[in-house]
Amino acid sequence: MSGLEKRLDELYAIGAQPDGGTYRGLYDAAWAAGVERVERWLKDAGLETRRDAVGNLWGRAEGTEKGKSVVTGSHIDTVRRGGRLDGALGIVAGLTAVEALLKEHGKPRRTLEVVAICEEEGSRFSTNFWGSRAIVGEIDLVDPEIAVAMRERGLDPGRTASAARDDIDTFVELHIEQGAVLESSGTPLAVVSAIVGTAHLQITVTGRPDHAGTTPMTLRHDALTAAAAMIQGIEAIARSLGPPAVATVGRIRAEPDQMNVIPGRVVFTVDLRHADLAARRALEQRVRSICATVASERSLKLEIGVLQEKPPVPMHPDVRSVLGRAARQSGVQSTELVSGAGHDAQILAARCKVGMLFVPSIGGRSHCPEESTRPEHLELGTAVLRQALQIIAY
Amino acid sequence: MSGLEKRLDELYAIGAQPDGGTYRGLYDAAWAAGVERVERWLKDAGLETRRDAVGNLWGRAEGTEKGKSVVTGSHIDTVRRGGRLDGALGIVAGLTAVEALLKEHGKPRRTLEVVAICEEEGSRFSTNFWGSRAIVGEIDLVDPEIAVAMRERGLDPGRTASAARDDIDTFVELHIEQGAVLESSGTPLAVVSAIVGTAHLQITVTGRPDHAGTTPMTLRHDALTAAAAMIQGIEAIARSLGPPAVATVGRIRAEPDQMNVIPGRVVFTVDLRHADLAARRALEQRVRSICATVASERSLKLEIGVLQEKPPVPMHPDVRSVLGRAARQSGVQSTELVSGAGHDAQILAARCKVGMLFVPSIGGRSHCPEESTRPEHLELGTAVLRQALQIIAY
Repeated sequence: MSGLEKRLDELYAIGAQPDGGTYRGLYDAAWAAGVERVERWLKDAGLETRRDAVGNLWGRAEGTEKGKSVVTGSHIDTVRRGGRLDGALGIVAGLTAVEALLKEHGKPRRTLEVVAICEEEGSRFSTNFWGSRAIVGEIDLVDPEIAVAMRERGLDPGRTASAARDDIDTFVELHIEQGAVLESSGTPLAVVSAIVGTAHLQITVTGRPDHAGTTPMTLRHDALTAAAAMIQGIEAIARSLGPPAVATVGRIRAEPDQMNVIPGRVVFTVDLRHADLAARRALEQRVRSICATVASERSLKLEIGVLQEKPPVPMHPDVRSVLGRAARQSGVQSTELVSGAGHDAQILAARCKVGMLFVPSIGGRSHCPEESTRPEHLELGTAVLRQALQIIAY
Repeated sequence: MSGLEKRLDELYAIGAQPDGGTYRGLYDAAWAAGVERVERWLKDAGLETRRDAVGNLWGRAEGTEKGKSVVTGSHIDTVRRGGRLDGALGIVAGLTAVEALLKEHGKPRRTLEVVAICEEEGSRFSTNFWGSRAIVGEIDLVDPEIAVAMRERGLDPGRTASAARDDIDTFVELHIEQGAVLESSGTPLAVVSAIVGTAHLQITVTGRPDHAGTTPMTLRHDALTAAAAMIQGIEAIARSLGPPAVATVGRIRAEPDQMNVIPGRVVFTVDLRHADLAARRALEQRVRSICATVASERSLKLEIGVLQEKPPVPMHPDVRSVLGRAARQSGVQSTELVSGAGHDAQILAARCKVGMLFVPSIGGRSHCPEESTRPEHLELGTAVLRQALQIIAY
């Protein structure tokens, strides 16, 4: 077993759950044990470690030239019953790559750092991107509940602002795809072109609850058959636009929820994503339009609320280019891919150049104990990351 | 205000609820008060009253000829927050009609009876058609909970079988439509041709729960978009078959019910009704077929369970013919209609000839405080019922 696999196994065991999977929630005991383990590895690799005010762990190899740092890594927290690779891979692959570079080529020209970001998943509190938001200086206020947990780990919430950095030049992260595009196309690696923008809509259709037996089809104001037509329309729109447009109706509720009563009211959510802001807005516009058409044809009332809206974040062209070059130099076939999920890179992009590499997820599974990637893909992703860091930092 | 309206008001006040509507649950205090009030009215009309073993109240005018009885009436119980007319109208109109016939024409040729059936709605216990099932001798076992309630009203559960009758020739009932067909066609009266047969299906669609961001449209196994296609198909089938076919999806549940996860499993119910058993079965067959087609096209798993199945009950041709004639003789425009809701007549049909008249429901509303019918329609329905009873019993 390679050092990479061994370290992934060790980290996976920290927070292991009785029913499978692992859980390292921000500032909990498993999280603290995980950070400690990574700190030891960083030290073993000859890096100078420090923890910032929110608990992000940094391992630093000072460059021969002055200037901003080149950083790699990922988050150390997990979802509940999380898998072995989400976050963990980016940290372990980063330190494995940097360790090898230092051993082979000595001191880098530019300062190289490996980071274990304290939180990304919304793993414990009603917040997410906690670590990267602290790094870009975006946290103005620490929730009292989080403040208590920070103090338990010896961190001073009052010093949170000191975690902000303006001396990072480039952030590069290796991550699993968490989808099945690479697997289904037989490609072992992707250079991420952008992280999608997301809009969450809540759609309410109001008709009239009538007796299922005494109301002929022609006299109905059925909110559910209308919602079904909308859902069909939404799917057709996303399909016709093609990747990376996706649209998902994940929640639906019909009222009064009785077998023999025509639904008078239906509420459902729509998750819309696209890598391009204008295209995401156009997608939303078409979704709004199909819903309005269906509601109007059926004389129903329609309300559309926006629950959340996040713009897409393009990866930096210089970093994309370096990552592509690194793949070619390593003899690894790669493609460009849009990330449908969120990552710390989208937050860090506000302060530095960012780039990401994806390796395939078996069956597209993630955020579950079945989360897995073929060992050769893990090795190959780590090799390309190492090559990229060499190009940038040496 | 007519005597009919006054009696309906009086009965509506018995069991009046603080938040509107009325509630007379089987064997409760309001129910008992309602039965007592109707008993007094029956006596005032010169009828000989008796209560049978389950609490059905009968008022009898002996005929000059020997033979089976001609019965009219309806049920005295109500749903929770029920309206003024469901059940009550059939009792009050029946006794008003018989009272007028006795006053005008004296003793009938055939024995005439008015019945207040003790329960039809499933108003209090997990049973329904309690009164009519006792009349046709269908109750083999009295639930202990119901037995306790019976004893509280002085009824002996052990005597239940004695409520069965084989001396009823014809049962005629005036009822509100509980739908909006008559109102929307501007017709004041319907002769019911049949009470629909119902099938309740539960349909489970199983796909795969995937990440809403990382799973392209083409790699999804979305149980909800499939269910939406099925619901659309079910509606289209019922529409294309035309009345009296109806199909309703009243309940739907998506799992895991998260905004950013593609639904891996959806369960929904289908309520199918038709007046003709073969047509109802054909409707069900087409529903099963469209669901199977959608599931197969999308490579999803499909399970269809039958929760309930009731055959349609045609009204007796002789009674339908008499009711049509009575309408014509009364100068009332009428149509034939299938009842989409269940009624005591469908139970009594096992032992006697049955027929029903419907008057319009304003806005199709029923089982709610807004349940209402225009006064002239109540009068006209009562007049046609009276005419029909005269044709049959005099």
